[in-house]
Amino acid sequence: MPNPITITGFKWVPPFARGQVRDFRIRWAMKEVGWDYDVELIDGDSLTTDAYRTEQPFGQVPLLREEGRPTLFETGGIVLDIAERSGKLLPEDEDERALAKCWTYAALNSVEPFLFEVFVADMFLEDKEVAKGYRPFAVQMATERLEKLANALGDKEWLVGRDFTIADLMMASVLKVADSAKMVEAHANLTAWRDRCFARPAYKQAIAEQYTEYERHGPTDMGWDESTTEMQAANAEGE
Amino acid sequence: MPNPITITGFKWVPPFARGQVRDFRIRWAMKEVGWDYDVELIDGDSLTTDAYRTEQPFGQVPLLREEGRPTLFETGGIVLDIAERSGKLLPEDEDERALAKCWTYAALNSVEPFLFEVFVADMFLEDKEVAKGYRPFAVQMATERLEKLANALGDKEWLVGRDFTIADLMMASVLKVADSAKMVEAHANLTAWRDRCFARPAYKQAIAEQYTEYERHGPTDMGWDESTTEMQAANAEGE
Repeated sequence: MPNPITITGFKWVPPFARGQVRDFRIRWAMKEVGWDYDVELIDGDSLTTDAYRTEQPFGQVPLLREEGRPTLFETGGIVLDIAERSGKLLPEDEDERALAKCWTYAALNSVEPFLFEVFVADMFLEDKEVAKGYRPFAVQMATERLEKLANALGDKEWLVGRDFTIADLMMASVLKVADSAKMVEAHANLTAWRDRCFARPAYKQAIAEQYTEYERHGPTDMGWDESTTEMQAANAEGE
Repeated sequence: MPNPITITGFKWVPPFARGQVRDFRIRWAMKEVGWDYDVELIDGDSLTTDAYRTEQPFGQVPLLREEGRPTLFETGGIVLDIAERSGKLLPEDEDERALAKCWTYAALNSVEPFLFEVFVADMFLEDKEVAKGYRPFAVQMATERLEKLANALGDKEWLVGRDFTIADLMMASVLKVADSAKMVEAHANLTAWRDRCFARPAYKQAIAEQYTEYERHGPTDMGWDESTTEMQAANAEGE
């Protein structure tokens, strides 16, 4: 077991952002490997302090603090570290391990950014005429990535090897960015695989834990007023 | 030494895309660790074949084939694999190794996608009114990421530890996406660090090799006609 671990999450986010804030990926991985952790719930202003930026250069959640180690950041790097040190969530075969790592980069570089752009068109762009003009391009790019992902998955149970790995954890996680645009559902195999990932007890526990924390707080706990815009929330959420 | 390795690259790209096509990252890493490799130069149509997609799900360059192993893809995963197997380009200290890996994910998920959006506004969006409306938003997002990166770098020589690592290789590589928009130059420390990375002999050899190949070919070798648009080229280029 590692030394005591603390991760960061938000005290509260609006309903549309729940299940999106990225600390759930770390909670999920932790519960998969059976590690304990504390969660430090923070508000929007905390992200902008020098102290936080020293640990998390981009001022985002989550980070992972472990006594005696440098703070880790980026969900890809944190999940990889958890997997490597626990000896879980990676294939036994050395070559397949390398491939599983490749898939985490694919999730975060070749899929998520394109799904995120649809989210940008729907949530971030304040000029609605620009958003309307930009959205079809973003949807086309995202659609192509999902088609390629669905083809690569085919009828496999998991992305790499015989078991659930960090490849599945990270790719299923990034697909949540497309939840509101309902883009994954165009592919039956992708939807079934994603639902297989999300049926895992560790995932359910991770999400339930995050939601329970949000239920105990409100926008004022984030330093926001009651009229917090979706854009403010989305801005704080994006890793 | 590994078994014989082949990577893929393009036969030709237009001048604006030179130094962008991502196989240079793999060439750079290979030359840093002293491994030999062959380059299979391919054309645009090759990316869309079932055979290529089986190896590279998103139909991009580069990939890395090594006899007796599954084909690897995604520059993040390939560079990490080269570093781990060669025992180079990673800090000696175990904790710093974890942090260096985090930085590769930061480059590919928290920096590159935002720089790429400026490139999208300048190159991809065919509707110039939409591009004009979208660009300030993309520039703002990219600017914020670069400011945070510059702050995190501070006056350090390298991003993690005392030596050049995959963290530097990958972050300096993704900054090239901002070359045409000249965004990095706003930060003296970032510019100096990037130039330090690019002054490495391995980088210079990698780029020279790629350019030399392009000099020997033309657009028709890519299956394009002489009037290949920048958008076609950019589209084929993006990993």
